[in-house]
Amino acid sequence: MAKRKHHRTTGGKAWEGRFREKTDRLVEAFTRSVTVDSRLYAEDIAGSIAHCRTLEKARVLSAAETRAIVRGLESIKRELDRGQFTFSPQDEDIHMAIERRLTEIIGPLGGKLHTGRSRNDQVALDIRLYLRTQLDQLHEGVIRLQRVLVATAGANRTIMMPGYTHLQRAQPVLFAHHLLAYVEMFERDKGRLRDARGRLNVMPLGSGALAGTNYPLNRRYTAELLGFPTVTMNSMDAVSDRDFVIEVASALSIMMMHLSRLSEELIVWASQEFQFVDLPDAFCTGSSMMPQKKNPDVPELVRGKTGRVYGHLVNLLTMLKALPLSYNRDLQEDKPALFDALDTVASSLQVMTELMRRLKVNREALKQALHGGGLLATELADYLVMRGVPFREAHGITGRIVRAALDRGRDVADLSLQELQTFCDRIDKGVFSRLTTAAAIDHKAQIGGTARVRVERRIKELEQFLS
Amino acid sequence: MAKRKHHRTTGGKAWEGRFREKTDRLVEAFTRSVTVDSRLYAEDIAGSIAHCRTLEKARVLSAAETRAIVRGLESIKRELDRGQFTFSPQDEDIHMAIERRLTEIIGPLGGKLHTGRSRNDQVALDIRLYLRTQLDQLHEGVIRLQRVLVATAGANRTIMMPGYTHLQRAQPVLFAHHLLAYVEMFERDKGRLRDARGRLNVMPLGSGALAGTNYPLNRRYTAELLGFPTVTMNSMDAVSDRDFVIEVASALSIMMMHLSRLSEELIVWASQEFQFVDLPDAFCTGSSMMPQKKNPDVPELVRGKTGRVYGHLVNLLTMLKALPLSYNRDLQEDKPALFDALDTVASSLQVMTELMRRLKVNREALKQALHGGGLLATELADYLVMRGVPFREAHGITGRIVRAALDRGRDVADLSLQELQTFCDRIDKGVFSRLTTAAAIDHKAQIGGTARVRVERRIKELEQFLS
Amino acid sequence: MAKRKHHRTTGGKAWEGRFREKTDRLVEAFTRSVTVDSRLYAEDIAGSIAHCRTLEKARVLSAAETRAIVRGLESIKRELDRGQFTFSPQDEDIHMAIERRLTEIIGPLGGKLHTGRSRNDQVALDIRLYLRTQLDQLHEGVIRLQRVLVATAGANRTIMMPGYTHLQRAQPVLFAHHLLAYVEMFERDKGRLRDARGRLNVMPLGSGALAGTNYPLNRRYTAELLGFPTVTMNSMDAVSDRDFVIEVASALSIMMMHLSRLSEELIVWASQEFQFVDLPDAFCTGSSMMPQKKNPDVPELVRGKTGRVYGHLVNLLTMLKALPLSYNRDLQEDKPALFDALDTVASSLQVMTELMRRLKVNREALKQALHGGGLLATELADYLVMRGVPFREAHGITGRIVRAALDRGRDVADLSLQELQTFCDRIDKGVFSRLTTAAAIDHKAQIGGTARVRVERRIKELEQFLS
Amino acid sequence: MAKRKHHRTTGGKAWEGRFREKTDRLVEAFTRSVTVDSRLYAEDIAGSIAHCRTLEKARVLSAAETRAIVRGLESIKRELDRGQFTFSPQDEDIHMAIERRLTEIIGPLGGKLHTGRSRNDQVALDIRLYLRTQLDQLHEGVIRLQRVLVATAGANRTIMMPGYTHLQRAQPVLFAHHLLAYVEMFERDKGRLRDARGRLNVMPLGSGALAGTNYPLNRRYTAELLGFPTVTMNSMDAVSDRDFVIEVASALSIMMMHLSRLSEELIVWASQEFQFVDLPDAFCTGSSMMPQKKNPDVPELVRGKTGRVYGHLVNLLTMLKALPLSYNRDLQEDKPALFDALDTVASSLQVMTELMRRLKVNREALKQALHGGGLLATELADYLVMRGVPFREAHGITGRIVRAALDRGRDVADLSLQELQTFCDRIDKGVFSRLTTAAAIDHKAQIGGTARVRVERRIKELEQFLS
Repeated sequence: MAKRKHHRTTGGKAWEGRFREKTDRLVEAFTRSVTVDSRLYAEDIAGSIAHCRTLEKARVLSAAETRAIVRGLESIKRELDRGQFTFSPQDEDIHMAIERRLTEIIGPLGGKLHTGRSRNDQVALDIRLYLRTQLDQLHEGVIRLQRVLVATAGANRTIMMPGYTHLQRAQPVLFAHHLLAYVEMFERDKGRLRDARGRLNVMPLGSGALAGTNYPLNRRYTAELLGFPTVTMNSMDAVSDRDFVIEVASALSIMMMHLSRLSEELIVWASQEFQFVDLPDAFCTGSSMMPQKKNPDVPELVRGKTGRVYGHLVNLLTMLKALPLSYNRDLQEDKPALFDALDTVASSLQVMTELMRRLKVNREALKQALHGGGLLATELADYLVMRGVPFREAHGITGRIVRAALDRGRDVADLSLQELQTFCDRIDKGVFSRLTTAAAIDHKAQIGGTARVRVERRIKELEQFLS
Repeated sequence: MAKRKHHRTTGGKAWEGRFREKTDRLVEAFTRSVTVDSRLYAEDIAGSIAHCRTLEKARVLSAAETRAIVRGLESIKRELDRGQFTFSPQDEDIHMAIERRLTEIIGPLGGKLHTGRSRNDQVALDIRLYLRTQLDQLHEGVIRLQRVLVATAGANRTIMMPGYTHLQRAQPVLFAHHLLAYVEMFERDKGRLRDARGRLNVMPLGSGALAGTNYPLNRRYTAELLGFPTVTMNSMDAVSDRDFVIEVASALSIMMMHLSRLSEELIVWASQEFQFVDLPDAFCTGSSMMPQKKNPDVPELVRGKTGRVYGHLVNLLTMLKALPLSYNRDLQEDKPALFDALDTVASSLQVMTELMRRLKVNREALKQALHGGGLLATELADYLVMRGVPFREAHGITGRIVRAALDRGRDVADLSLQELQTFCDRIDKGVFSRLTTAAAIDHKAQIGGTARVRVERRIKELEQFLS
Repeated sequence: MAKRKHHRTTGGKAWEGRFREKTDRLVEAFTRSVTVDSRLYAEDIAGSIAHCRTLEKARVLSAAETRAIVRGLESIKRELDRGQFTFSPQDEDIHMAIERRLTEIIGPLGGKLHTGRSRNDQVALDIRLYLRTQLDQLHEGVIRLQRVLVATAGANRTIMMPGYTHLQRAQPVLFAHHLLAYVEMFERDKGRLRDARGRLNVMPLGSGALAGTNYPLNRRYTAELLGFPTVTMNSMDAVSDRDFVIEVASALSIMMMHLSRLSEELIVWASQEFQFVDLPDAFCTGSSMMPQKKNPDVPELVRGKTGRVYGHLVNLLTMLKALPLSYNRDLQEDKPALFDALDTVASSLQVMTELMRRLKVNREALKQALHGGGLLATELADYLVMRGVPFREAHGITGRIVRAALDRGRDVADLSLQELQTFCDRIDKGVFSRLTTAAAIDHKAQIGGTARVRVERRIKELEQFLS
Repeated sequence: MAKRKHHRTTGGKAWEGRFREKTDRLVEAFTRSVTVDSRLYAEDIAGSIAHCRTLEKARVLSAAETRAIVRGLESIKRELDRGQFTFSPQDEDIHMAIERRLTEIIGPLGGKLHTGRSRNDQVALDIRLYLRTQLDQLHEGVIRLQRVLVATAGANRTIMMPGYTHLQRAQPVLFAHHLLAYVEMFERDKGRLRDARGRLNVMPLGSGALAGTNYPLNRRYTAELLGFPTVTMNSMDAVSDRDFVIEVASALSIMMMHLSRLSEELIVWASQEFQFVDLPDAFCTGSSMMPQKKNPDVPELVRGKTGRVYGHLVNLLTMLKALPLSYNRDLQEDKPALFDALDTVASSLQVMTELMRRLKVNREALKQALHGGGLLATELADYLVMRGVPFREAHGITGRIVRAALDRGRDVADLSLQELQTFCDRIDKGVFSRLTTAAAIDHKAQIGGTARVRVERRIKELEQFLS
């Protein structure tokens, strides 16, 4: 916030005709978006080419004019691809930068490109085009992570572990079953991405600044050129709508939440107390001070970045609250939030995929953790039900057995038949065949249960489905 | 936070067998959810009946037992419907209250109801059932508002007004076109509600506490009884998943954002400066101090309640961040947020629907507002393009004409042909037929444009679609 | 959202003179705040009495009138205290309810109470008065928790445990040192509460609806009567300011974050894998299905309620975004958020205080956890520094020793002198006196360090400070 | 998210001794923070120099060593100041980059700098140092804006305008009074900045990684060297505390909310309907399509950026939710949010200051707006009170007069004495001297009121106070 002089700019703005003063430099810097929105250049040029062809079809441009403009745009695309495009300080945004450059290359004809178009519908188009590609890539990224999870589940399909509720050991489950829970979560994420993509896959060009266009543009033709199945139905809505940005940010927030849950589990599992997994050295970092440390930085950072995506969602919702129709400059702020949310989720997905691919499962520790903790108490209760005790009573009896076992420093499964029978005389020696981890697991054989046969089948289904 | 003694409770908990101390009263009060979740009673009972029938089909319950339990549940339903159900201080939640009452009515047999079920899958079921109904009602509520908007658009289909960008007059539009923009927004809201409903319409019962169930429950049968097309595929996911609550809260946030935009416009339009609309007296309130005041309280409150729904979304996202699998008690906090979000949106929708139904449009003020402000400048630029001037140059010429008109205290449309020709000699008298509001509007005749014929057609389509 | 008829209300509003229609019932229900703001009745009456006395001093009311009004208000206070006050459906808010009742009791004279006052400045006063009390009580609540933490630290002052970074064992610390970290956090919370209280302790009455008052009210006198050190300096700001509500919500959010961190640690510590603490049975609950479960519901719920307070903060920030001056009805939404945030933090504080008071520390488990994990590696590095090795080199040597120990399945502290010397010949047998947990702890003897003598001193300071 | 090979890095990490694999490149990229935290270099070097001197005082470093290290650090500072510092791909963060460079310059001695220090306490120090400076600059920035507001108020001290509640004309106020409301808001912002600064102005170095330091460092001496009045009292708290970052983000959010309210008013006031102000051309931009447009982009962007700062606050709160002690890598995410929040507020403040400095007030439009709208109705009610009518009755009478005037298309102040007397016979001709805008304003003469004499006095006080 150092003191600064307010020189006027010297270059010209496309819209300066009506203005008496040049834009203040401070304002130029404050309102400039080109450093952020230059990321949209490919979409902007693709959109401009389609717009150009639609103008040609409407006989607003001649075939020769169209050819010249398209060629100009294509050469600008190459400049930008190669990093050879020079931005001028007067370029407010990527749209004006490209139009400026077009006019440098092909002369005043460049001034015809913006016929029947406004930046309002242009930017709405660009973000939609950009998001289509991004969501497709994210979709692929999610599938890659799912595949790794299914593969890891498959490679450890017989490994048993305590399942937890309240971070307390609850019932034995397959390690694979636990991993597959995440596959289901990510499956829903894909559904949300697809739905959001479907809802934004609508062509806004031809909405003009807010009222539509004076030119006989065939909007469905533009849509066809750009692969949109349909067009927006109200010009005022089309230029002031950012629902799709929020919807994407919301889907990303939920996905990031899922990644944060997986991260939390990895961090807990990698602790010396749990030791359920070993993170690869290459995915950990050390301490500047403590030589023995090997820290699960990757899942910690993924967990930490969750707030970043949530924050962007809040940003976007706040921005749009109580904004009157139609376009307002506030909307420019959609891009930093959206882009960073996309980047954060994409890189988190990628690094978690690699981490999971190389995760070492500590089978010994998982096995150890199955002892104690009364993991089989529910089996005992269900055994009593089988013997005719109403469930609620069976639960009560088992609870007393658990307490007694605790008092004696033993596990329920280690009590003798005699001891058990003092709590309920319906117990017979058949109980012991029920009180094993494997039996407990394999009895959960309904759809969605953790029985080996069931998990096996689900792995196969998912392998097929994801390939 | 007054000092209090910690008496132990005297009643019994369903799970107390394993415990050595009674729950502290402070803890009972802190963890109790029955005041909130009693709202789910109908869904809980419907779910219990379906569970019961599934137990019967699995031969865990006899036909007679099933009949007795179902009858018991139905009589509890009637008690609750009539407000005659007495909650006990020991009822932790609606699930335990109903089971407790069932046992009072039908005796120990009541203790069989919870066989093969956990509150974890039970509550997951209840919320899904509840949300299905709620989302359907909201969907209806949105349609009602859309219909009122379309009707108001239809009743004012020839009324012109300035369209705004940046709250500055931009181009003339039809008042109906402006209203229809909101109809499109709410159409997307319906899409999001439908997608969320589809994704949550999956039957979780049979997931047990986390691992599945030991009983041969036919989960697809339960699903069929309750009208679910499918069942959850992973028990651990099923009990720890609240994606659907977040997704609904996100869809509600976007809808509330739309309502806040409409509210903002009504507030601005009802100001003495705009006077575009007159809110019915019955929808305004006065001031305790200033006798002349008539305040647009309803749209203000709707706008103010937007943050409420956003806040609930943030609450839910925060709650689920980094929560390890599977069920954790934190999840209990999903309901206050969800319920209040649903209530807030439902009541806001309802009151806005009535307000819009009775809105008076001030045609005179809208007409006045069409004068001045250079609303036709874009028409002039497009006229120049038609006369062969490249758009960017035409824009510049028009900008200079606008500035000159401003300097002379006049509007562009009021300049003489001679004056206009000093800026560009291609202008001829044909310009004046273009520089009228009606011409400006009717030239925007492409799909989504504000031309009368176009808006007329869209009103018809929507009337048909919404009926 | 059931269909309903819109009957007009029959009762009278204080401001209805200017209105042609009665308020719609739907609107009455939507805008009514009395169920929420009735909580402010004591403050409202105290404020009204002070206002009355100020009117008397300004000779707007006579001594007799003042006496009668004050008596009337006091009897209303008693009615409300005893739950004998009957709200009427026409009571929009607590302010109007009290004025209505006053007129019932003392006749038309009641109509003089609102002279020179608006609900806008009245409600601003009430919330400030209410918050003063609430913040004082919260302050006390924090102190109670701090005292319990210090007492628990004192009772376990010699217990050692692994300190963690990244949930990995890092260096040994005193269990007491760990607890005292929370005491410091809560100390900052108290500072934020105090600062917020100071900033809101400013008297707004006399600001009227927005412009000030026509009556010669001595605002400093009102302030004095109500214990405010100063008065607001701009009437428009005074009625539209809710900074203090946000500031309080922000301080509460940070405090709740602290409670969530403590909760997280308790949950992790109470796991079968850590077993560092044992939560009292009376503070846990069981499972409806799994008889052995004893779940840390209290810390889970506190952690889960964190999002609730964050959500209220977001609500308030959203509500005030871009709100023009001065009062807008949106502001009514400040109270549900504020009240629930206060209640949530107060009850969380209280229940956590009791939980911590009865926490059992599992000394054996803590002791076990000190073995392995290379907790003393930093001591070895610092020993090498003492022997003249530059720290960065010492760190590297120790890292290699750690790796070698890991490979051999041993801990650094268990290597022989010979083994150690193969890595660095400056090591002599003096190293072993450094490689003990006690030595490691007691060497951290600077201010803020975990040395026993240092922690002892801090406990004493805090005991004194908090008493 | 393109497929990529995972080459291992070749450079060395300071902590690699214990590791068997090189860090994966993907992980290096994901965890690297140097592009963000290089902004802290000056603070990092200042902190290192102070640490170095403290090591010297503790006789851990010799005077010569200290001199060499300090000289090395100073030359690195110059390299960084001049943009001549070359970052290596292996530089994880600014701290490691500087230590790496130091060793390049002064040799193995550089390895002694990190003695008795961890990045955990080092980064805690750096952010605190950085924030001290930033908050001081922001404080100055707020004062500059306040001064401009006071100057604008002073330059327009006699201009009257309608004051608004609910965006409805309420009572006349001075334009200066309206502006001064913002000065009061910003005054509170300064208070929050000061309080936050006070609370973070505590020296954390010497806390080590989490447990304190093994070296006899005089922490108060380090504090003195760096201008801290005190030191942190618990090492575990010191390295895991980011309260101060949240507190700053919260203060910035409230300030941004204030700027959004001012922006909203400027946008509304600059509309053709209000025309209260004219924004300088140099602070507006035009439309790419509509040649007449002059848009209030600056206040729109400031309003739009409000969500950005709110979002960062949510990010930080989310990040810290339920994070166990002590340091976790999640904390690295504090900096992008904090830095962008600071930048956004600083640039918004600056550009709004210049905008307000050059704002043109349209006195004619303000004057026009004083007519109609019943702005003087409250004066009439208060006149009746003066004539002995109880206020509530006077309010009712006036309400009916307002309605009658509305029906006749006239303003209250334009009714004849006879007409007025039909509503209340206590009205005499003295009423007309009360029913003028000037009288209405000047009667609000208590502290905080809008009377000219009162506003005049406040301007003087503020001028003095802010100079």
